Amino acid sequence: MTTKNTTESKEGKYPSELRQDIITGHWVVIATGRAKRPDEFVSPCEVAVSGSDPFENPEESGQEPDVLIYRQNDNDWSLRVFPNKYPAFVHGRTPKEIGEGPYYAKTGVGYHEVVVTRDPVHSIAEMEVWRVAEIIDAYQERYLALMNKKSVSYIQIFHNHGREAGASLSHPHSQLMAIPVVPSELVVDLEGSKRYFQAHRQNVFDVILEHELKTKKRIVFENEHFVVFCPYASRSAFEVWVMPKRDNAYFERITDEEKFSCGEALKVALASLFKGLENPAYNFFIHTAPCDGQEYKHFRWHIEIVPRTTVWAGFELSTGIEVSTIEPEIAAPFLRSQID
Amino acid sequence: MTTKNTTESKEGKYPSELRQDIITGHWVVIATGRAKRPDEFVSPCEVAVSGSDPFENPEESGQEPDVLIYRQNDNDWSLRVFPNKYPAFVHGRTPKEIGEGPYYAKTGVGYHEVVVTRDPVHSIAEMEVWRVAEIIDAYQERYLALMNKKSVSYIQIFHNHGREAGASLSHPHSQLMAIPVVPSELVVDLEGSKRYFQAHRQNVFDVILEHELKTKKRIVFENEHFVVFCPYASRSAFEVWVMPKRDNAYFERITDEEKFSCGEALKVALASLFKGLENPAYNFFIHTAPCDGQEYKHFRWHIEIVPRTTVWAGFELSTGIEVSTIEPEIAAPFLRSQID
Repeated sequence: MTTKNTTESKEGKYPSELRQDIITGHWVVIATGRAKRPDEFVSPCEVAVSGSDPFENPEESGQEPDVLIYRQNDNDWSLRVFPNKYPAFVHGRTPKEIGEGPYYAKTGVGYHEVVVTRDPVHSIAEMEVWRVAEIIDAYQERYLALMNKKSVSYIQIFHNHGREAGASLSHPHSQLMAIPVVPSELVVDLEGSKRYFQAHRQNVFDVILEHELKTKKRIVFENEHFVVFCPYASRSAFEVWVMPKRDNAYFERITDEEKFSCGEALKVALASLFKGLENPAYNFFIHTAPCDGQEYKHFRWHIEIVPRTTVWAGFELSTGIEVSTIEPEIAAPFLRSQID
Repeated sequence: MTTKNTTESKEGKYPSELRQDIITGHWVVIATGRAKRPDEFVSPCEVAVSGSDPFENPEESGQEPDVLIYRQNDNDWSLRVFPNKYPAFVHGRTPKEIGEGPYYAKTGVGYHEVVVTRDPVHSIAEMEVWRVAEIIDAYQERYLALMNKKSVSYIQIFHNHGREAGASLSHPHSQLMAIPVVPSELVVDLEGSKRYFQAHRQNVFDVILEHELKTKKRIVFENEHFVVFCPYASRSAFEVWVMPKRDNAYFERITDEEKFSCGEALKVALASLFKGLENPAYNFFIHTAPCDGQEYKHFRWHIEIVPRTTVWAGFELSTGIEVSTIEPEIAAPFLRSQID
């Protein structure tokens, strides 16, 4: 085992810190007494290989017709969006209450789409920035197309990379699920940021960015419109957030200029993980305001990247308190040093 | 891929259901359109093997002195509890506020212990019932010893089995962490059950047990004092709860008679998973009332067993909504059929 003993280190650090997420109030444990070096987290992901690539020739593999196609020339496509062949949410049905006894349930009415880039091998970490900006453009276009549909309360955009992160196909793709409820993780974010606003009359995301840009301890990258940093109360080792500088709760209101800036920030973040941890498995996802017509001025949309280098065990599952064995103040400079 | 298409099945089921947890209000998706058969979840766990077993000869492997020892005869021990050699929480220090700028943190003051059974190989699923009752006895004894310590707000008891569930040692052991905060997962349980009580003037756990015992659709096992069932809004495939029949929020108030009954229920539940899914990885944990002196009569302590046969991906991480591809109404009779 590579864990150290529990005495205080020479730097006077404590064996563990309970850090509280400033937005949600959740606790995490940064177990510095069990701390590892950044390179001990190197863990190349297992590539998810299916028999054949269903996105290589979508027409022949039985995909449904695409709902969006971007072409770079007349002959070939660069990005396409398909309805998911095995959707977790299905449109075209009337939502129906199907509870049982004291329990409540409804049919899973919604939309489930797949955003596919042309290259079957290279992930976002290895793409040119304009291609990443194109992905974000597609996210926005599909978001706008679905946000006003009946019974859509929230649209979750996410990306799985590597088998450990739940990817079942190796061809890089993102997913978009338009669902009839506002998920609990979002509710916690929204309520927490509202509580902060009411208590301090300040947007908590402004407070975070101001502090991070001042101390620079956890900054990985910054460009004109975005800041990339490891959050103070990181739930996972090497967790990275991509946060817009502009006060905007709604992802779908991203501007063309911001899209390019966001594409660069996301690419640099993923490339630093790719290089530093040798292509680890990860998920990233967008947290944005619900599409329920309410006002969320205390909130700000952002991207969260969660590398899957460790396994959550019983303590995490039972308490919701994640134990991380590297401080974000160590993770961030390590990732920064991986940027070309 | 083994997933089916999205049309309605012959039974008239919907491709997916959004089920709401009656206690917490959280949503899960039961994706019957992607449904698998129970035997498709068979996944023997990877045994976590360390170089040598630190619990075989604790005196020689540098364990700290045990805080509890049970012997079956004069020569050998059957169960011991050690302070964890690599604790996530450490006692003997004054809690200290160590926030930074707008962020809040405190030192990880608490207790972290390991409950070790003598047999280095056989897990609870394979033990005689009296040995499982002995484990529960040890949980209680250590709980009682720590619950009144200064700065202990909650005691989390949990067990990791298999590498996929975060176990780093193959020798079966449980862990107990006494921590200075009430974790968010518990807060959600406590607030939800209180809300239910205020709205319905009924204990939600009574409501659940009454409905489950009436319909019997999700019952796996029942004995004098406990009911084993797959919850209606299961967050994971083959999730199983072990619930006391007696209205009691406090695990530490379990009686001797209940301990044996609980040991049998836990053993039967784990044995049905062991046989049906061929020794899968799992976590189990106790949810009980905080030890903060407040009253929690709307709550009931219980054990949750979470098999780790699937990987949570970006949708689960981002929304907190787990997608399960088997209905608890299919999982429960399958597990029931595995009982000798």
